Amino acid sequence: MEPAGSGCLGLADVHPPEAGEGAALMRRSERDAAADGRSVGFVLVHAGAGYHSESKAKEYKQVCKKACQKAIEKLQTGALAVDVVAAALIELEDSPFTNAGMGSNLNLSGDIECDASTMDGKSLNFGAVGALRGIKNPILVANKLLSEAQKGKLSAGRIPPCFLVGEGAHKWAVDHGIVSCSPDIMATKFSLSAFRKNRRKLELAEKVETEMIQTKKRREVSENSNVTASLDTVGAVVVDHEGNVAAAVSSGGLAMKHPGRVGQAAVYGCGCWAENTGGHNVYSTAVSTSEHSFHSVVPIKSTWYEIAVKGCGEHLVRTMLARECSVALQAEDAHQALLETMQKKFVRSPFLASEDSVLGGVIVLRCCSCSLESESSLNREALLVEFLWSHTTESMCVGYMSTQDGKAKHLYQIMKTILHPRQIFLYPVCQLTLDPVQSGLADRGLEQRLC
Amino acid sequence: MEPAGSGCLGLADVHPPEAGEGAALMRRSERDAAADGRSVGFVLVHAGAGYHSESKAKEYKQVCKKACQKAIEKLQTGALAVDVVAAALIELEDSPFTNAGMGSNLNLSGDIECDASTMDGKSLNFGAVGALRGIKNPILVANKLLSEAQKGKLSAGRIPPCFLVGEGAHKWAVDHGIVSCSPDIMATKFSLSAFRKNRRKLELAEKVETEMIQTKKRREVSENSNVTASLDTVGAVVVDHEGNVAAAVSSGGLAMKHPGRVGQAAVYGCGCWAENTGGHNVYSTAVSTSEHSFHSVVPIKSTWYEIAVKGCGEHLVRTMLARECSVALQAEDAHQALLETMQKKFVRSPFLASEDSVLGGVIVLRCCSCSLESESSLNREALLVEFLWSHTTESMCVGYMSTQDGKAKHLYQIMKTILHPRQIFLYPVCQLTLDPVQSGLADRGLEQRLC
Repeated sequence: MEPAGSGCLGLADVHPPEAGEGAALMRRSERDAAADGRSVGFVLVHAGAGYHSESKAKEYKQVCKKACQKAIEKLQTGALAVDVVAAALIELEDSPFTNAGMGSNLNLSGDIECDASTMDGKSLNFGAVGALRGIKNPILVANKLLSEAQKGKLSAGRIPPCFLVGEGAHKWAVDHGIVSCSPDIMATKFSLSAFRKNRRKLELAEKVETEMIQTKKRREVSENSNVTASLDTVGAVVVDHEGNVAAAVSSGGLAMKHPGRVGQAAVYGCGCWAENTGGHNVYSTAVSTSEHSFHSVVPIKSTWYEIAVKGCGEHLVRTMLARECSVALQAEDAHQALLETMQKKFVRSPFLASEDSVLGGVIVLRCCSCSLESESSLNREALLVEFLWSHTTESMCVGYMSTQDGKAKHLYQIMKTILHPRQIFLYPVCQLTLDPVQSGLADRGLEQRLC
Repeated sequence: MEPAGSGCLGLADVHPPEAGEGAALMRRSERDAAADGRSVGFVLVHAGAGYHSESKAKEYKQVCKKACQKAIEKLQTGALAVDVVAAALIELEDSPFTNAGMGSNLNLSGDIECDASTMDGKSLNFGAVGALRGIKNPILVANKLLSEAQKGKLSAGRIPPCFLVGEGAHKWAVDHGIVSCSPDIMATKFSLSAFRKNRRKLELAEKVETEMIQTKKRREVSENSNVTASLDTVGAVVVDHEGNVAAAVSSGGLAMKHPGRVGQAAVYGCGCWAENTGGHNVYSTAVSTSEHSFHSVVPIKSTWYEIAVKGCGEHLVRTMLARECSVALQAEDAHQALLETMQKKFVRSPFLASEDSVLGGVIVLRCCSCSLESESSLNREALLVEFLWSHTTESMCVGYMSTQDGKAKHLYQIMKTILHPRQIFLYPVCQLTLDPVQSGLADRGLEQRLC
């Protein structure tokens, strides 16, 4: 196992673009992909970075697959990235196996309060909701905030909001045609059971703490009494037929969080980021992050201890990880750029120096135009897409699919024991060429790389 | 008048540090400033960037003066920067002439909902509240969130929150000993009168819009029917006797905003930023921003038009202005660094390319150790503080004071007509040396520079 921070584990070698390729890359003029009756595009989704129970592996894969398929269906109708990414998120939120939308973690009061946000790389607009109750799909509200803001000012010159929270966010959603949902429906058998267990643990921990104060003993609470959560947040990144990128993220937040707590999924620059090519940007980039809290085994001074390490959205907020990744991905080597960002801006960030461990995950996508040789000897423009992901948690569950795939066959899940609290798992860059003329994947086949 | 973006207006020449000075700068070891029975420190406050009515100039100056005096009193008791900046903000929030705390703008429902945040440059911790009702001083809650988070985990290993909104934030505040306040007390005669006027304008605008839809006419609502607000948000930056920096910001948000709307004052990296020296940082830096909405006169194609231009916290959110300024201020020339940041990262930011105008203001402070020659021929360490401010609005009201001043004599306010919607007003760098041994200001007297 690699030492902390320098670890770079993958299933295959890194395949950066060939040396001459950079010169062939060019700004992509928007084209009508419907010319040949078919749209191109790609989606990458995650069902969280954390601890995925092996017993539920099938369900995690299934939800990622469904989210990919839904996104591809939308892409094939010619929908733009910002709406496609929302379609993927709806599937992820609807699953009872994710900590987003339906079946989210319950807070300290036994309520579900969700955070979600989305960013459109084309307009650079952003929409977010925080601590939102009673809406089955928080991403729908974030998407609606973004699209309403694009329409310009409200009556009497008022600025449309881009970030709404709590009751106000719920009212706005309902006023804009999003159906309200009873809190009882959103809580699942699993999330209610976890809440009851956590409440008992909390009562026990507080009793022990009170006794300690009375007897003036040092706090040595059993870590078994710690709040646990085994569900993960979700996110997606998309590129559409115009080459636009978009990103989204959704989370039910930490189990037993204080009511009103807002995490990274609602905070600008922290939960997701998307920027089209243009200006100083050679690549269009899209990023979505994941928070989680879990127990792990950590070695201290060569001895094994089981201690509780907690990951949380606060790590992703304080490091603004989504935006940091996006900025870094303008470098030539995407793999190296993401590795350095995860090392310097996340696990070794001075903002998290006092943390036991730094936990989170990220999926990233970047793309640019490339020219393909055609039989007519005239070069043809296509879209070169590169994607990868990284996490410091035990596992991360992702799915991906392009419009040129018949089904979401490229799913992946890893289970590994973390040996160091600041270990980084980083996957090699996957490349594909989206060519509106040819029906299959172009020369950089995905299957040889990953699956 | 300078062309857009390149404008650099000031009252005096820029005085960057002398060439040899950089080499003399050194990392400052913490010292006990109480050794000679006196603490050193400095505070810079703002009562917003926007349109300050000349008729209320006296009140704006007065509130800045009181905030400075309160901060200096706290510094003299040996308080750390993060608590001093909160003390300054309380004074600013308590004034009925600012759009923060008491007398804030009312939202669409006639309620006051406030945002506030604070950051500690020493611990790099952050605390924020959004859409908070019924608490007279939102900064107190942000400060309490920050200080509670520094105590470590909660019972059962739960992560303490750093960002709370709405009802949950109110409950947390009351549970932590912060007194609730009746909404009736927070609304002032002035804010209620503005709300009633704005409501009438809104009703009129919506009536006109309905008629336009019915008659299929293009929207040409009179700009006189636009919502107006003439109060400004507040903020402060502080350096204490240990050389720690802290920043804070507080805002009642836009007039007639949607309930639940959260603006830049609560968003990490956008409202305020503070980072002590260390790592790659030569300087400790602290930044606080200001949002405003107002009417202005704007020239289009050499002809004068009176059009409504709206500034809002969304501009400061989408550009993450506080953090951008902090990063830039590590450059040698603070004046040039701030000018370039305001140009490239704010008024010409691709994130605001579609805006009529880009409006906001910022106060910044940076400091580092410097060595002073003493009579004993042994060099003595002191603190070199540089501060400046910039805005793209018609006016900005600031106040500043050091522990070596008898009173907050250095107050400043400007009223200028904006000639271009992307004009930048930037003030020269002011320098002072905080010397714990000498009672007066050291060689770089402030008075020769500014007042």
